[in-house]
Amino acid sequence: MEFQRITILGVGLLGGSIGLAAKSYSNRCVITGYGHRESTLKKAVEVGAIDKMEMDLGKSVSDADLVILCTPVGLFEKMIVGMRDSLPKGAIVTDVGSTKRTVVGLGERLLGERFVGSHPMAGSEKRGVEYARTDLFKKALCIMTPTGKTRAEVVGKVKQFWMGLGMRVTSLTPREHDRLLAMASHLPHAAAAAMVSMQLDEGLLLCGKGFLDTTRIAGGDGALWSDIFLDNADNVRLSINLLKQELDQMSSLIEKRDGEALAKWLNAAALRREELMRSKLREMEE
Amino acid sequence: MEFQRITILGVGLLGGSIGLAAKSYSNRCVITGYGHRESTLKKAVEVGAIDKMEMDLGKSVSDADLVILCTPVGLFEKMIVGMRDSLPKGAIVTDVGSTKRTVVGLGERLLGERFVGSHPMAGSEKRGVEYARTDLFKKALCIMTPTGKTRAEVVGKVKQFWMGLGMRVTSLTPREHDRLLAMASHLPHAAAAAMVSMQLDEGLLLCGKGFLDTTRIAGGDGALWSDIFLDNADNVRLSINLLKQELDQMSSLIEKRDGEALAKWLNAAALRREELMRSKLREMEE
Repeated sequence: MEFQRITILGVGLLGGSIGLAAKSYSNRCVITGYGHRESTLKKAVEVGAIDKMEMDLGKSVSDADLVILCTPVGLFEKMIVGMRDSLPKGAIVTDVGSTKRTVVGLGERLLGERFVGSHPMAGSEKRGVEYARTDLFKKALCIMTPTGKTRAEVVGKVKQFWMGLGMRVTSLTPREHDRLLAMASHLPHAAAAAMVSMQLDEGLLLCGKGFLDTTRIAGGDGALWSDIFLDNADNVRLSINLLKQELDQMSSLIEKRDGEALAKWLNAAALRREELMRSKLREMEE
Repeated sequence: MEFQRITILGVGLLGGSIGLAAKSYSNRCVITGYGHRESTLKKAVEVGAIDKMEMDLGKSVSDADLVILCTPVGLFEKMIVGMRDSLPKGAIVTDVGSTKRTVVGLGERLLGERFVGSHPMAGSEKRGVEYARTDLFKKALCIMTPTGKTRAEVVGKVKQFWMGLGMRVTSLTPREHDRLLAMASHLPHAAAAAMVSMQLDEGLLLCGKGFLDTTRIAGGDGALWSDIFLDNADNVRLSINLLKQELDQMSSLIEKRDGEALAKWLNAAALRREELMRSKLREMEE
């Protein structure tokens, strides 16, 4: 790994897991954790996610060669503005945000060609550094979102970093990222929350394992997801409309009592999911 | 357990698991399996799910004290008509169908007070007696749907039977059952299928563990689920509308950029699901 002095801004589940994974990958690198709560930083040191804690933002990055933004996306602007004058000349900055258009716009505007957006697709409905895991990123996908303005060297080094943590890395434009993730990730979250919300109390008592699985992702932090939905508002609203259209199609087949078309449609979805499962399993075995 | 000669009509995952569980609960009872495929019945004997196989419907029930309909709901009428003249006088009949209004109507019309509807809420997206498990019903919920026409003795004996298999038993009217299950079970299946169906191929490649969990139940058999949706058409279509309303509400909060209300709504759903998880865990520990 190129990087030897990594600063993690925001040491929660993701930031903490990056620290653990980077240290297990290379024993030469020193991890500094920045945060505004002393107790969280102390916990992060305790579990071995960071080597040093620092509550002064400027100081935390002053000798870093890689800075990773791991706070909620809504705080990125404040973080970048607060640290950029303290950043060493050659330092590279990336992030772990779930949306990329505004983040990359911000990063490039305020930091220029030394910034590249990343979205390591790993996590859990759990929060906090106490749930950080060395293997959180293993075999998971990281989407990087370089643009025409990003320096190739920056992309290459950050890509090597994520691969060092065990990730597969792919590239999309920030625009493509936000469009596809709205459908594949943000909408499922919205639908899961909606399905919990619509239940009657007496119906909830009848919910089984299937319902709990289907709604597992609805257990996440509301403020975090609210930020994601607002930041990707156009795409999320389009995805909600797409889902409503699929449901309408289904409802109309039911109304027409067209059992054959309905079964065909359901089997096509089942088959498509099965193929997805198989390809995911193949990735895991590689 | 009261019953000593149990006939299972249709020996798949559910029927086979009932056989295994009943035999592990009482070594005095003899299980007969009926089906139209010899190979399936032989497999059921091999895995120990049934003691005897029988391909003649009338003969299969001729000395039974309990008959359990485990075929798809669409075949129930044919099954009942084909066996009722061979049923011993005191024999009780129940079923495992996922919808209850039409099934109970049919059972009461053709079999009278010796029929009671049951819906053991256990299963899997897997199919076939080779996946049958002795513990499939353990701690799971069975909803019984007696009506004013059902003999109390019939209800009591069948309730004892499901409890013997390790289930918790509750009662609903067929109407209440179908209304609540449409929301708690049938709709989540429909939504999972719709969410798979709406994805772009390039987006599917980005789907993570969350998406696979959310859509797990979409892996079920299309024909079986098509039957369920058609049999419970009114309620399923109402539930689809409820989900669309929730999604619209969400979409409108996003459009208004009301992050606070959105976060509050998402947190309420997360909390509600957490409470549900806790109550399910308590049930498991009891």
